[in-house]
Amino acid sequence: MKSEVIVLSEERKVSLTCYLQPVGGEFTGICERPAVLVIPGGGYRYCSDREADPVALAYLKAGYHAFILRYSCGVHAAWPTPLNDYEQAMSLIREKAGEWHVVKDRIAVIGFSAGGHLAACAATMSKNRPNAAILGYPDISGAFAWDLLKDPPDILAAVDGKTCPCFIFASRTDNLVPIRNSVDMIDALTKHDVAFESHIYSNAPHGLSTGDPSVGVREMCRRYPNWVADSLTWLEDVLGGFGPEGLTEPNFGFRINGNRDETLNLDCTMDYLAQFPAVRAMLPECFEGQYRYPEAAGSVITLGSFLRFARLSEEAVRDIETRLRAIPKSDKEA
Amino acid sequence: MKSEVIVLSEERKVSLTCYLQPVGGEFTGICERPAVLVIPGGGYRYCSDREADPVALAYLKAGYHAFILRYSCGVHAAWPTPLNDYEQAMSLIREKAGEWHVVKDRIAVIGFSAGGHLAACAATMSKNRPNAAILGYPDISGAFAWDLLKDPPDILAAVDGKTCPCFIFASRTDNLVPIRNSVDMIDALTKHDVAFESHIYSNAPHGLSTGDPSVGVREMCRRYPNWVADSLTWLEDVLGGFGPEGLTEPNFGFRINGNRDETLNLDCTMDYLAQFPAVRAMLPECFEGQYRYPEAAGSVITLGSFLRFARLSEEAVRDIETRLRAIPKSDKEA
Amino acid sequence: MKSEVIVLSEERKVSLTCYLQPVGGEFTGICERPAVLVIPGGGYRYCSDREADPVALAYLKAGYHAFILRYSCGVHAAWPTPLNDYEQAMSLIREKAGEWHVVKDRIAVIGFSAGGHLAACAATMSKNRPNAAILGYPDISGAFAWDLLKDPPDILAAVDGKTCPCFIFASRTDNLVPIRNSVDMIDALTKHDVAFESHIYSNAPHGLSTGDPSVGVREMCRRYPNWVADSLTWLEDVLGGFGPEGLTEPNFGFRINGNRDETLNLDCTMDYLAQFPAVRAMLPECFEGQYRYPEAAGSVITLGSFLRFARLSEEAVRDIETRLRAIPKSDKEA
Amino acid sequence: MKSEVIVLSEERKVSLTCYLQPVGGEFTGICERPAVLVIPGGGYRYCSDREADPVALAYLKAGYHAFILRYSCGVHAAWPTPLNDYEQAMSLIREKAGEWHVVKDRIAVIGFSAGGHLAACAATMSKNRPNAAILGYPDISGAFAWDLLKDPPDILAAVDGKTCPCFIFASRTDNLVPIRNSVDMIDALTKHDVAFESHIYSNAPHGLSTGDPSVGVREMCRRYPNWVADSLTWLEDVLGGFGPEGLTEPNFGFRINGNRDETLNLDCTMDYLAQFPAVRAMLPECFEGQYRYPEAAGSVITLGSFLRFARLSEEAVRDIETRLRAIPKSDKEA
Repeated sequence: MKSEVIVLSEERKVSLTCYLQPVGGEFTGICERPAVLVIPGGGYRYCSDREADPVALAYLKAGYHAFILRYSCGVHAAWPTPLNDYEQAMSLIREKAGEWHVVKDRIAVIGFSAGGHLAACAATMSKNRPNAAILGYPDISGAFAWDLLKDPPDILAAVDGKTCPCFIFASRTDNLVPIRNSVDMIDALTKHDVAFESHIYSNAPHGLSTGDPSVGVREMCRRYPNWVADSLTWLEDVLGGFGPEGLTEPNFGFRINGNRDETLNLDCTMDYLAQFPAVRAMLPECFEGQYRYPEAAGSVITLGSFLRFARLSEEAVRDIETRLRAIPKSDKEA
Repeated sequence: MKSEVIVLSEERKVSLTCYLQPVGGEFTGICERPAVLVIPGGGYRYCSDREADPVALAYLKAGYHAFILRYSCGVHAAWPTPLNDYEQAMSLIREKAGEWHVVKDRIAVIGFSAGGHLAACAATMSKNRPNAAILGYPDISGAFAWDLLKDPPDILAAVDGKTCPCFIFASRTDNLVPIRNSVDMIDALTKHDVAFESHIYSNAPHGLSTGDPSVGVREMCRRYPNWVADSLTWLEDVLGGFGPEGLTEPNFGFRINGNRDETLNLDCTMDYLAQFPAVRAMLPECFEGQYRYPEAAGSVITLGSFLRFARLSEEAVRDIETRLRAIPKSDKEA
Repeated sequence: MKSEVIVLSEERKVSLTCYLQPVGGEFTGICERPAVLVIPGGGYRYCSDREADPVALAYLKAGYHAFILRYSCGVHAAWPTPLNDYEQAMSLIREKAGEWHVVKDRIAVIGFSAGGHLAACAATMSKNRPNAAILGYPDISGAFAWDLLKDPPDILAAVDGKTCPCFIFASRTDNLVPIRNSVDMIDALTKHDVAFESHIYSNAPHGLSTGDPSVGVREMCRRYPNWVADSLTWLEDVLGGFGPEGLTEPNFGFRINGNRDETLNLDCTMDYLAQFPAVRAMLPECFEGQYRYPEAAGSVITLGSFLRFARLSEEAVRDIETRLRAIPKSDKEA
Repeated sequence: MKSEVIVLSEERKVSLTCYLQPVGGEFTGICERPAVLVIPGGGYRYCSDREADPVALAYLKAGYHAFILRYSCGVHAAWPTPLNDYEQAMSLIREKAGEWHVVKDRIAVIGFSAGGHLAACAATMSKNRPNAAILGYPDISGAFAWDLLKDPPDILAAVDGKTCPCFIFASRTDNLVPIRNSVDMIDALTKHDVAFESHIYSNAPHGLSTGDPSVGVREMCRRYPNWVADSLTWLEDVLGGFGPEGLTEPNFGFRINGNRDETLNLDCTMDYLAQFPAVRAMLPECFEGQYRYPEAAGSVITLGSFLRFARLSEEAVRDIETRLRAIPKSDKEA
């Protein structure tokens, strides 16, 4: 394994630590590897070592290349300097992807606390978007660093259909960054049809990193450390993982429904479809059975699920799909 | 293990299945056992067998007594009949606690889908409150059974300080009950300082019960079945579990902060304390250091956490606590 | 779940407790279920409750039917009475397989301590062989009950090619039944090409059953309770498990090599093949490369593995297999 | 994390790769760290990369320093050159322990296949003994490299009371190194009262390293990869681990019984004590109850366990211990 520290700004003490694993040879079928970019926390006052190497090692062990970004803190933290540091790091990794054997479109950011704030900004408003974001007890509001950030961004308002899939974990009893931060982020991701997974553990103080005993942890519920292994299989679900022949395709990917597809289809949600007069005209007949149409129409459940639940014949379902696809997306009401 | 079915209403096909484990003898120190009351789903149309025995067995294996409530469905589902069924079942269990060797104040409900709706009603509005509630992909809005429930209750509005601790799990891609239901419940529990744990898995269809292959599952992310083991250690955290000498005390319990305690104290949150003029007068001095008081005042973080974070001396902290406790709770502003 | 106790002998207090799970209906594709027959320990002095229900529940949870055999103890334990009890129980289960929806050839025994002795007898010398045996800290020598058994059988001498696959777990520091018992059994299974899995945990006292805290356990290494889940996936490997469409085929089965197949083949071991003069005449040429034939000939490794390791061409390997199959098994030297 | 490669012999291509983690600072209480020395396999023909970095990373993640020894192979493998390489590496690590912040007496070796052969030699016959040894599908007989080793050592004969605690894992169906190797080693460790843990998995081919999908694995039973986590908690049991305040004491240590203690005591085994005429004269009285003395005398179970099992009074037990301690160890019969 090669290890290297690239200084991005000497003045602001910004650096990118690179841990690069071998490819090819005995690692049959592995010509390049996915990567994580770790963003430690520290209230934008410093970058915590407890959220740097120990985190990188968890993903290295799983076959990923790992990078650690130490970004502008303290007097250098005024927004958007830290985000610019991120942009520089991510753009460098993608630039060097060939040389470093990194899969360009399988790079996740993982940030903790203030680093979770920066990772969430990367996920929602950066130019160099990560392909997935893991947010550990993130300070979504940025409240803990208002004095340093000066003009902090509104992350919740920035969540939209282009936000990358997110994995959020936090503790209900976080004693520094209120759990409200994670709850609000989950709410925003739900609202905008973004793929996510979330784990809110009942009991743990702030800042436990991986929860491994060697990181110097304190009293916590014993489920807390599960986030590490869970985030790994989640990455496999949304970005793909390793298999006997090398890299594998994602198990599920991150499409939540069909609302953003090119044509209307059975994976569109009822409330979305209800905005098309032609759909409204066509559908009531399907719901003569168990469910009343007006109620179903308000639902974020997909039409396909409804039709199968209502036990329409396969033929009837196919017929509805054909008619749906013929309705222009431009016919949507304002 | 004894097994018995008690008919609660023959007309409405309501019954309580009881699985009672032995106590005493070789089970040193175990004179009584905690219990779960399982409430299967089925859209208030029927009670699913897949969410009955297989769930009961998971908790039986962990040493719990298990009960299954089959409640009023279909034409009998008009509200509040199902809730009355629950009340009858829970009050019977507590009545028979001595004979059945049940720990009266360690009884959790666990409901799925429509059963999660009923379990959430038990947690928020029943007369015979459970001590903890596990809600599996709950239909909090009751939308799937509006036609049958007639006058369904508003669960979200009913969440308050008396709501029992909740463990919520669901799938982001639930194809029948929108994840919005669980997100809204988490939001309400956060708002009202209720203890909870939540796991939203990225990918799984509706209705997977325990996720055990023997329950006939379909494609899901491999983390989904973890909720079973996680709910067990969570119950140990909030209600207590089993130890070498018999039952143990809870690891954490379910107090989230000190806002509902008899006197003001360091575990009260900043935003709560800010409503007391005497506190507002007293605290700014503590925050001359890292954090500005006006910002901190809006926070749901406890004063104690803030003071420790700000590195006040132990003596100063103790002094503040003494002064806090002397301020009457009646001095709160409207 | 139905529960029933069938008395096999009132005088000797022998009984079979039956826990039978539902099939069909919502349990799509499950028309019958595999089963376990639990044999508790107790030094042939009594049958321990701690190794009865708690064990049955672990397999019930995983979808199995579960039976518990309480066999002849104390003054009734003289051999072969306990084995006869087993024969009666297993033959009853197979007889009732249709009525009880049991898969006849997917029935495992699981015994602990003295019950592990009886289960090992079932595996090696019974008329009604189980399809797999799980032996928990078994008293293979029967030393703990010589006084009661009078004329105990020699299990190690009885191990042969017809012994069913075994899963053995025990503790290195077992304070009553020496670990030597399990080590000797593993040795015998190795010698006779029987499929097995074994887990010897570094630290735990005797008699911990499932290791679940609710069974009243004492100090043990935290890996101990893993045997439960491990035995379940092992059963899936050797007998098959549950899948989306019902029962699945075994992942691996229990064939260790080809020595007992109808014709010689590449899965036969080198030391077995070396007993055939025709093979001895034919093989040296294959080993001109990396390995010297005389050494390889003593190995229990299969010829196929050797040839692949020695990188012979696929064509050469196929040619050797053809010639092997033509050599009569009767040509083996005495 | 610092990474460095120290060349031990340029001619024989022997090197020690060092991965050193930070101590102190935010890693409260961690002034030094335990370490693992990884010894890859490769039939003494080469050192496999698949059993080098991926293994080191698993222990690095758990807070250990990790070293990888690439030892003399091929024409340089004639015994004892590889063992000398090991001696040089281990003695260097202990020499630099202060500078590298390594806990001198918490260094485990971990070797695979041929590397397992070398690790087992380190455990049984080296001058610089490791404090624990993890042996992965070890080639105990050295059969796979007889041609290269020339004069391979007899590991089984070398096992004695000074052998360090061992953790052995292997697959029943290993297609290259027969499982007999691990079974014989377990037998020898049992015979000589050496602490160990062993896991023999039912199904997996040779050479799977950590079993992580990123190492390019093939079909195996799903329990196989558990050895990694299990070896970590085992190390914690025998050598100690990490806790909230830094390093912790071992949970159990590696004393198996009292036979090697300074004086006779209740932790000595019955068969050992039976060699002392004075004990033989004194003990029969204790066994008038449940167990007959002559049988018990042959047992490797400790006297203390027997007495407690036979329910002697605490007073009687203490009295026996006092008398035992007074019997000189020199009185043992030849």
